[in-house]
Amino acid sequence: MANTHIGNLSMGSHTLEIPPILYETNRKRLVERIKKVEENSVVVLQGGSEISIYDSDTSYIFRQEAYFNWSFGVTEPDCYGIVDVVTGDCYLFFPRLPIEYAVWMGPLTPLDEFKKKYNSQYVHYVDELIQVLQKLNRKTLLTLSGVNSDSGCMFKAATFEGIDNFKVNNKILFPIIADLRVIKTDYELDILKYVGEVSSAAHRHVMRFANAEKFEYQCESEFLNYCYKHGGCRHVAYTCICGSGINSAVLHYGHAGAPNNYKLEDGKLCLFDMGGEYYGYAADITVTFPVNGKFSPQQRIIYDAVLKSNQAVLKAIKPGVAWTDMHLLANRVLLEDLAKEGLLQGSIDDMIEADIAHIFQPHGLGHLIGLNVHDVGGYLEGNPERSTRPGLKSLRTARILEKNMVLTVEPGCYFINILLDNALADCYRSKFLVKDVINAYRNFGGVRIEDNVIVTDDGIRNLTKVPRTVQEIEDWMAGKDEDNKYT
Amino acid sequence: MANTHIGNLSMGSHTLEIPPILYETNRKRLVERIKKVEENSVVVLQGGSEISIYDSDTSYIFRQEAYFNWSFGVTEPDCYGIVDVVTGDCYLFFPRLPIEYAVWMGPLTPLDEFKKKYNSQYVHYVDELIQVLQKLNRKTLLTLSGVNSDSGCMFKAATFEGIDNFKVNNKILFPIIADLRVIKTDYELDILKYVGEVSSAAHRHVMRFANAEKFEYQCESEFLNYCYKHGGCRHVAYTCICGSGINSAVLHYGHAGAPNNYKLEDGKLCLFDMGGEYYGYAADITVTFPVNGKFSPQQRIIYDAVLKSNQAVLKAIKPGVAWTDMHLLANRVLLEDLAKEGLLQGSIDDMIEADIAHIFQPHGLGHLIGLNVHDVGGYLEGNPERSTRPGLKSLRTARILEKNMVLTVEPGCYFINILLDNALADCYRSKFLVKDVINAYRNFGGVRIEDNVIVTDDGIRNLTKVPRTVQEIEDWMAGKDEDNKYT
Repeated sequence: MANTHIGNLSMGSHTLEIPPILYETNRKRLVERIKKVEENSVVVLQGGSEISIYDSDTSYIFRQEAYFNWSFGVTEPDCYGIVDVVTGDCYLFFPRLPIEYAVWMGPLTPLDEFKKKYNSQYVHYVDELIQVLQKLNRKTLLTLSGVNSDSGCMFKAATFEGIDNFKVNNKILFPIIADLRVIKTDYELDILKYVGEVSSAAHRHVMRFANAEKFEYQCESEFLNYCYKHGGCRHVAYTCICGSGINSAVLHYGHAGAPNNYKLEDGKLCLFDMGGEYYGYAADITVTFPVNGKFSPQQRIIYDAVLKSNQAVLKAIKPGVAWTDMHLLANRVLLEDLAKEGLLQGSIDDMIEADIAHIFQPHGLGHLIGLNVHDVGGYLEGNPERSTRPGLKSLRTARILEKNMVLTVEPGCYFINILLDNALADCYRSKFLVKDVINAYRNFGGVRIEDNVIVTDDGIRNLTKVPRTVQEIEDWMAGKDEDNKYT
Repeated sequence: MANTHIGNLSMGSHTLEIPPILYETNRKRLVERIKKVEENSVVVLQGGSEISIYDSDTSYIFRQEAYFNWSFGVTEPDCYGIVDVVTGDCYLFFPRLPIEYAVWMGPLTPLDEFKKKYNSQYVHYVDELIQVLQKLNRKTLLTLSGVNSDSGCMFKAATFEGIDNFKVNNKILFPIIADLRVIKTDYELDILKYVGEVSSAAHRHVMRFANAEKFEYQCESEFLNYCYKHGGCRHVAYTCICGSGINSAVLHYGHAGAPNNYKLEDGKLCLFDMGGEYYGYAADITVTFPVNGKFSPQQRIIYDAVLKSNQAVLKAIKPGVAWTDMHLLANRVLLEDLAKEGLLQGSIDDMIEADIAHIFQPHGLGHLIGLNVHDVGGYLEGNPERSTRPGLKSLRTARILEKNMVLTVEPGCYFINILLDNALADCYRSKFLVKDVINAYRNFGGVRIEDNVIVTDDGIRNLTKVPRTVQEIEDWMAGKDEDNKYT
């Protein structure tokens, strides 16, 4: 690999270099926190493995498990890593590969090279793990186990043959490491900025590529190519959502059952929610724009309402603010605008009380983002619990904001038949809805405007650099502005 | 979706339409074969499910399981399908999705629409499976279980709560359906031709894109984009292998531990092994070309040797021929040329006897291809068994060729230090090697030339349409020829 500094991870000189100190810093923070509760211990993490596609001998391209990535930055599968809480030392364990590996997969990397690549104090083969742990002889092995509050999935703790001979605690580690992942270091912020820039540029590119001759998936393809070719992002952080027309009202459109396979239509909107991933760190950006480059009056009304909602939140975020309050603020601004435009009627306070916003935005305002697009730590003990109210209960965190949290701000407004029908049939909620006006939007689709922001000392830094106002979007799509307006 | 015929699968009018009769024909063939052994039975297959990425709430994009795809063409996850062997009728079972699905994933598809989409006699919800099976009341449920001879993995038989109340046979189905998959129908051949054309055009595009300013992964990215944007191929059939320079000698380069991250270098070769996938059907094409567009004398020698090997096989393939003989033919032609060029010495027969070819081509000549890139049915009972000899034992099938088999023909010649060192240190094999000449190729990398061919009545039809001779490649890369030369 040309033009990069030894010990740094990168995809070439046109991409970001990631220094090993990022992972060293994460481990140092981890050790400091664990020392306070279980000093004589060692953290044992198991890296991810390749996953076969059914019984075939092809696999999904390996992606490292996020906690392991956060701790060690190791890109290879089938590894273990341990952090000695007493000394802070890092030990990495790589599989002892058979000689045929060299023929099929490439030259066997000597341990010394791994040591340099990951700046680890010690490197071993996986089959030496027990021996090393025995020699260290710490009182407790800390393994990672806990429920992911976004997926509901249990994180599978590290295991290896012989682990039963050690005293293992799988309770302590999870809340500590998940909480540490919530607050990003400056090194991590650099990557999130980078992947935000790459993804923003890719979105700008796609906005000019899109027209009524293209299929949604062709826009997805252009986005993927831009992120990989220009940014070194082999993966995106989640399946690309490229909804046009009525599909823009399907929140997670783009999956195999609805695979971005419609043709864009003149007069319709595109809602493109896509984000690159660089060494595991995610971007999550949504743009909404008209296929033909000019907003219709209807489109402008809804777009402006969502943009006001987005901008109100961007202005209000700062340390100490509750994320639930930001959600309610976004709701309020949206409802006010929809009322002003004649879609709703009555008191805004009553609408908030009646969860009217949830009819139009049936998702939370946004979520933590980092090594997972829906990042961990949203509902850890000692933080505000999940609300039971429609809208608020969809929020992936209810935390009080702190400096160096990174979040998405993604208000939306969608016209989803089933939600509208239910609300119109409900005597309590229907009184707020101006039926005839709303029905004129039945095939409108939806608008979402999603930025990724860092919480700073007194506000935010926005990592998303795309045309946002109606004017900016129309100018951009008409080819009037240059990229440097957004870089 | 615009411009396609109802009931046909396609990604738009610029892509291939797949008619439901493809899957009907497969089921018909299946029923005919099963009738002979277990007439009063019903085939029960379980479709694939989405796979989460670790504990997160993101997933790999769903890919349908290949046997299920072959039988039903269903693109949605979490389905079952049954074929009544008595009547030949098809029953599809779709998950009964919760109402929230409509908000997040798109409108719930009514069963009637699935019925039309897949032209199935009957459609139900998955929770009705037992009831339907009870009503059918066939003597035996046939489920699919067996070892994939490429991966060594066991195929997981369909299961559902209550299956214990039926008489299940999981032995009969596997050899029958795997064997049927080996011989392609004309409908299947149409898809394989299509995905071969798309992938060939993508390779041609990448050959002109590549130069000493590019990274290997940027070529991968261009290939992916071409296949998806122009061909509607959301997936490739396997991880792209984009080796340049010494990496061209790593057979399965491109995985996460060696992620196509070198910069192309003037004077070096590229070995790009990539293939698109369309509705599950795979292409698998390798081109080898010089980064700067002009072969060096060394490059020309090895390239021409491999091309002769490839062409000799393409001429010799026809029904009745043993695949092992094709492998040995490829070896012989390669050895003859390497001897002529002074890399080897001694009798070619003795070299064959000593497995000298395996030093330079440590993989089989090629493999069956279809819904899996390494397609099933290579070593079914009643066919020739796997050889124990180096070289031949790497072959993924030893079958006698039949009309409408589709195979890759992919001879190669690589200079892999560990294999050369072992051979040179071995008194039996070293006498054939001209050490000084071979050592001059130590950092050469390798050449592979891979075509996909249909076995016809009296020969082959080549599905791969890329520049192949040294002259063709140099002309193509110099921009002299048009695409229509290869279409």
